Amino acid sequence: MARIPLDRANRTPLSEQIASHVQQLIDNGTMPSGSRLPSVRRASTMFGVSPGTIVDAYRVLQHRGRIQPRPQSGYFVRDHRVRPAEEPRPTRPRLRIHDVPHRLAERLHAHARADNMIALGMAQPDRSLMPVEALTRQLHRSMRDGPARTIDYGPTEGTAELRTEIARRMLDTGCLVRPDEIVITNGATEAMYLALKATTRPGDVVAVDSPTYHGILDILCALDLRALPISTCSIDGISVPDLERALQTRRVAALVLVASFTNPLGGCLSDHGRARVAALARTHHITVIEDDVYGDLAFDGCHPPAIRSFDDTGRVIYCASFTKTLAPGFRVGWCVPGPAGDEVRRLKRKMNVATGVPQQLAIARYLATGGYARHIRKVQRAYMERTGLMIDHVSVSFPEGTRISRPLGGSVIWIELPDRFDALRLFEDAEALGISIAPGPLFTPDDAYRNCVRLNCANPWTTQIASAVSRLGMLLKEQDDDHTTGRKRARRAPVHA
Amino acid sequence: MARIPLDRANRTPLSEQIASHVQQLIDNGTMPSGSRLPSVRRASTMFGVSPGTIVDAYRVLQHRGRIQPRPQSGYFVRDHRVRPAEEPRPTRPRLRIHDVPHRLAERLHAHARADNMIALGMAQPDRSLMPVEALTRQLHRSMRDGPARTIDYGPTEGTAELRTEIARRMLDTGCLVRPDEIVITNGATEAMYLALKATTRPGDVVAVDSPTYHGILDILCALDLRALPISTCSIDGISVPDLERALQTRRVAALVLVASFTNPLGGCLSDHGRARVAALARTHHITVIEDDVYGDLAFDGCHPPAIRSFDDTGRVIYCASFTKTLAPGFRVGWCVPGPAGDEVRRLKRKMNVATGVPQQLAIARYLATGGYARHIRKVQRAYMERTGLMIDHVSVSFPEGTRISRPLGGSVIWIELPDRFDALRLFEDAEALGISIAPGPLFTPDDAYRNCVRLNCANPWTTQIASAVSRLGMLLKEQDDDHTTGRKRARRAPVHA
Repeated sequence: MARIPLDRANRTPLSEQIASHVQQLIDNGTMPSGSRLPSVRRASTMFGVSPGTIVDAYRVLQHRGRIQPRPQSGYFVRDHRVRPAEEPRPTRPRLRIHDVPHRLAERLHAHARADNMIALGMAQPDRSLMPVEALTRQLHRSMRDGPARTIDYGPTEGTAELRTEIARRMLDTGCLVRPDEIVITNGATEAMYLALKATTRPGDVVAVDSPTYHGILDILCALDLRALPISTCSIDGISVPDLERALQTRRVAALVLVASFTNPLGGCLSDHGRARVAALARTHHITVIEDDVYGDLAFDGCHPPAIRSFDDTGRVIYCASFTKTLAPGFRVGWCVPGPAGDEVRRLKRKMNVATGVPQQLAIARYLATGGYARHIRKVQRAYMERTGLMIDHVSVSFPEGTRISRPLGGSVIWIELPDRFDALRLFEDAEALGISIAPGPLFTPDDAYRNCVRLNCANPWTTQIASAVSRLGMLLKEQDDDHTTGRKRARRAPVHA
Repeated sequence: MARIPLDRANRTPLSEQIASHVQQLIDNGTMPSGSRLPSVRRASTMFGVSPGTIVDAYRVLQHRGRIQPRPQSGYFVRDHRVRPAEEPRPTRPRLRIHDVPHRLAERLHAHARADNMIALGMAQPDRSLMPVEALTRQLHRSMRDGPARTIDYGPTEGTAELRTEIARRMLDTGCLVRPDEIVITNGATEAMYLALKATTRPGDVVAVDSPTYHGILDILCALDLRALPISTCSIDGISVPDLERALQTRRVAALVLVASFTNPLGGCLSDHGRARVAALARTHHITVIEDDVYGDLAFDGCHPPAIRSFDDTGRVIYCASFTKTLAPGFRVGWCVPGPAGDEVRRLKRKMNVATGVPQQLAIARYLATGGYARHIRKVQRAYMERTGLMIDHVSVSFPEGTRISRPLGGSVIWIELPDRFDALRLFEDAEALGISIAPGPLFTPDDAYRNCVRLNCANPWTTQIASAVSRLGMLLKEQDDDHTTGRKRARRAPVHA
């Protein structure tokens, strides 16, 4: 590659110009499938730009499905037999405040545990990747070595061992946190419930990314909070300018968001965006609750910096868990509540006294062995591969015009169908065939995203899953035929039960 | 013993007449220490009364400290070197609705975990009595035999195995419950939190026994509920006539109470009283939430019938846990929410998705082995003996006029000092000496019980504990001296922080 001239006067960002240049090289065969891209440092010299611009350019190409990272080896050109689908369009929810209704999550949970369902609905991790034996061993050792510790009431804030290990791991997020600033919870859901209950009053308005994780809407519903959806994009995550406009015109108490590999949309807020969100928290006196359960699952092995790492006022509450990385059944999460800490601990004690001790000690010991870093690299690689396979298969099975997110971490993809399709009908039809999917309306307090679907890609790719995806495609074909012929189907029972 | 004539026209209940007759026989040496009382059946023939009346009479004598049960062997005359203190007077709180302030429970929790404190404050079980090895074994087997089960998300309502074992055990409470009616929670505290959140709205009034378990007040505080204290007695528990009067004059949403071995007062509601409470729930359309964490710890080995067993309308929600009987650190409890079940499960899912799976499976397996019945008999015996020793020691160490509850189950005693004593001062002074006690005001939303103290008797009786109790007596002597001489002590920092 020779030095390629960039148009610095052009309004197109340099990173996108570089991405286009590299894509041309891929398309014309100069860089064939499987070949390695120049390292970030080398490319930065080649193009005469900062390394950050190269990282951004490579991100664009990843989202387009043209290249993919191999942790600790660099970026490689993907084998693209399948023409990559376009990314979903950035969402544009109306700036309106919504009460949050009860949702159809119960059925999704039931699907996930039904033996006869192909469960692509819930964002469950692949249990076969989890370090079951090591956790079993550490659980047994905790009980054996310190029975009194495991039997007695644990501290409300969690065991010191686990808080220390978490403080150490949180260096990856750019946060310097003392163990005594951490509160262990029953998963990230409880962390967010406590954080919101400690910092809001019933009736308050909470801004959320849109679409947002349905568990966040559930918490708002349980706490009688109202939701203000903010537009979000499958590449950059929440729109910071739109958030700022919303804060200027609406009285908002808090913002809850997934900044890294948003669930369901898959975007990842830029470092600059994170810094701005932290600044907005300060200027608008709102609490920001960041749900970072996917940060450890960045496909390039680099945990994006937490929004909290840009905050110096204590207005950002960091929440995360080991649910997606070690064991959902253990229910171990945490938060770093800052000045709300006393209230969070007090509420936690009133609600359920403390989190179960055995699984805390088992995870603390497991982390102390140092095996976690290797373990999550394995999970990152597997999810990247499986997400890619799912995207390819959806691309060929779903109707023309389908858009698919290509996240750079986590395990879910977001599928935006042409407007005429109905994801709730697909949900019902697929359930009847023993396939569970997560329909778009699950992720919003209003009636939006009727044409969207989230699929979990964590499971090992099998012919069973491939054929389930094909059958989803056929169900959509049926919808299309009905649409074209103007036939109406009998109305089904409402799903917002 | 010859047939003793009873005065059936007398207003004194037959059971109390019988108790007086038997006490005379004990006092005059006819029935010496250690001798066995006639069996309930034999005595019922001798006195010509129903067996229930004899059970009541023997209960009165137990409360007076004159006899004690040995499970499966009958009742025996106690060795009473120490003149038994009188029972505390029934409480008479004013019929007033209170907001519930934050409480000093944090400090009590901290005491319980401090190595250098003699922790008589929190109602912790004695860990040395707990079946640690058996639980460790079962925990390990659960992980080994079904790693997928322990790693994956568990069902929100809890694992089927544990719900089945609990349904079986609940036969002891007189309740016929299907496993699918049970919801597993993070301890009984979470069970009550969910039950109250599902059945009340912020600002609602909740009747509570007075004094009541401080954890119940904490839940009311967290849910913005108001408390209406009802008078309660250290023998019979909550006053049903006073409860009825309160329901007639106040708009009450729910009643929360410990019916069996009330914490802190130690009373046990009669079967008749339980039936009436269930009937009041129906006529006054209130939810009754019964906290039965101590029912398994009846010194006579007979779990009192649950209030729920008298209810046929679904208005009584039963809550319990394995915290006092197996392992506080495991955080495993449950509730039987009846018609509120859907809402309780929904809230549980929104709040923390599910309870940790490993400890649920370990407890289910442990219960299935059948060792639990033998285990709790051991705990019952130990607590009866230790409670007796504590009462004796308090009787000789504390000032003249001290009244002490003599509960027939559980592990705590309630001490009512003469009015001039200040339990909050004792709390502070004792803390400075490394002794943790629970002061009366912890158990009430108003300013009552300043002259009362709760002590936990679960720990093995040691000279260290004996000397701690003596030192408490000396601190009270100091208070008395200050009082007599009119000296004022420097005011301390307020404890209701």
